[in-house]
Amino acid sequence: MATASLAAPSDAGASPSDAQPTVAFQGESGAYSESASLALFGPDAELVPCDTFDIVFGGVEDGRFDYGVVPVENSLAGSIHRNYDLLLQHELHIVAEHVLRVSHCLIGHPGVRLEEIRRVYSHPQALAQCEGSLAALGDVEVIAAHDTAGSVRLVKERGERDAAAIASAYAAEVYGMAILREAFEDESTNYTRFVAVADEPQMPGPGVDAKTSIAFAGINRPGLLFRCLSAFALRDIDLTKIESRPLKGVPWQYIFYVDFAGSLQDEVCRRALEHLREMSTFVRVFGSYPRANATWIEGE
Amino acid sequence: MATASLAAPSDAGASPSDAQPTVAFQGESGAYSESASLALFGPDAELVPCDTFDIVFGGVEDGRFDYGVVPVENSLAGSIHRNYDLLLQHELHIVAEHVLRVSHCLIGHPGVRLEEIRRVYSHPQALAQCEGSLAALGDVEVIAAHDTAGSVRLVKERGERDAAAIASAYAAEVYGMAILREAFEDESTNYTRFVAVADEPQMPGPGVDAKTSIAFAGINRPGLLFRCLSAFALRDIDLTKIESRPLKGVPWQYIFYVDFAGSLQDEVCRRALEHLREMSTFVRVFGSYPRANATWIEGE
Repeated sequence: MATASLAAPSDAGASPSDAQPTVAFQGESGAYSESASLALFGPDAELVPCDTFDIVFGGVEDGRFDYGVVPVENSLAGSIHRNYDLLLQHELHIVAEHVLRVSHCLIGHPGVRLEEIRRVYSHPQALAQCEGSLAALGDVEVIAAHDTAGSVRLVKERGERDAAAIASAYAAEVYGMAILREAFEDESTNYTRFVAVADEPQMPGPGVDAKTSIAFAGINRPGLLFRCLSAFALRDIDLTKIESRPLKGVPWQYIFYVDFAGSLQDEVCRRALEHLREMSTFVRVFGSYPRANATWIEGE
Repeated sequence: MATASLAAPSDAGASPSDAQPTVAFQGESGAYSESASLALFGPDAELVPCDTFDIVFGGVEDGRFDYGVVPVENSLAGSIHRNYDLLLQHELHIVAEHVLRVSHCLIGHPGVRLEEIRRVYSHPQALAQCEGSLAALGDVEVIAAHDTAGSVRLVKERGERDAAAIASAYAAEVYGMAILREAFEDESTNYTRFVAVADEPQMPGPGVDAKTSIAFAGINRPGLLFRCLSAFALRDIDLTKIESRPLKGVPWQYIFYVDFAGSLQDEVCRRALEHLREMSTFVRVFGSYPRANATWIEGE
């Protein structure tokens, strides 16, 4: 099942040909990761909320789930290193990406007015992204919850009419709650890039605008990165992301995360990776997948 | 005053020769940024807590403060893009760096036992970094506060004996509170890199092990980054950080943040920057400064 091809991948819904694939995401029903999973796999997929990212990766690895959908990068907060670490730890393959516009709503019980709100619950990251809007509400208590969508459920279940939660419009819909204020985030250009992982690679079809994600490392000396990048530059392969990260506890050593245009179906990309392996001590290919149509990542 | 040289820079205390420089940081007294400011400027500096990073940058620019100390990178959360944006917006210069080991403590009133704690306050980021430890406490309410150190002050001022705050050991000392548990963070390898900014550059003295931080951009086409990095590689200049970031709303355009070994006092580095300017459309030098002695950044 996991080898099914993502036949007509697009930003709007790269539904695999599998009947009802099982797709795991971190968070509760209504989470942003669920929105990304829906966009990638369509309404027929069976979406499974998981407590932690470890459970998502582990479950795809042991075959309980066909796919896992996890965030890897946010336009305000940067790379989500936890999930890059998990990509390195697990032998899974990136098979799709989706870029989600993150717009937070302040959500409460239907009929409640904004002035009645005395407490606001949400995930710490969402609270941080709405700090200015929260301050403007005046004297409200701000309470951290495990999850954005979970905080909506909590306000609903406890029947707290003087409390609100910060989550997506989708979470309000899932729990039948009311949006008290839209676009509650302080900075409107807030995008999160998600990837779907599977236990087998799924090559984009011929002619599909594709991307490949890799990580590599080498013995640190001046020019290491330059020599490694020559593998791509000398073949006119475009890079769409690069980031160095110090390796924990290993002096003078870095790991590089690179995304480049093209797929391992292309001979030129395979040759570039061969060249890169000569220049480095470690290369890990996370996968080739259709490029999402998103202005944040590459514009149109 | 701001042109004074950081004469003997080291990780332990690069005190400038100014009598009592004024050093601004974001947060309340006892914040991690205050610990970094102390490490960089010593106990004689006048440390000024500020509500926001904007106030720190603005105040250094208009001469109210001699220096500002801000976090730019965390080993778990990655680059702090907000402060890179502010570095680009303000015409200030990085004059020093410090790498701080972030170790959170659970702090309460003296004499209180851990089992008595029913509420925990802290900054959303700190709460997120202690999620596992908080869950292990059992049934406690987790409440987001503006600030780590501020949450200690709050617990103290309100006299809440069944509440605790997550902050540094230094914050417990500042407010005369007790450490209920040390090393409360889930992941122990938690480091934050801070930089000190001033309105004039301060060149490291000759023979000082120095670093230079820059940002650059160019017209995106395959090989752009490779050509730009040739400026360093062909001169055997070592890179210590590289990160690409999509430019908001500008299709196919990226800005690159690079740190490299050496200072603008070195002719080879000046020539590398001339070369880079030929290859790119935008180069901004944030400054040359003594390299911090920190295993997270480069090991020893």
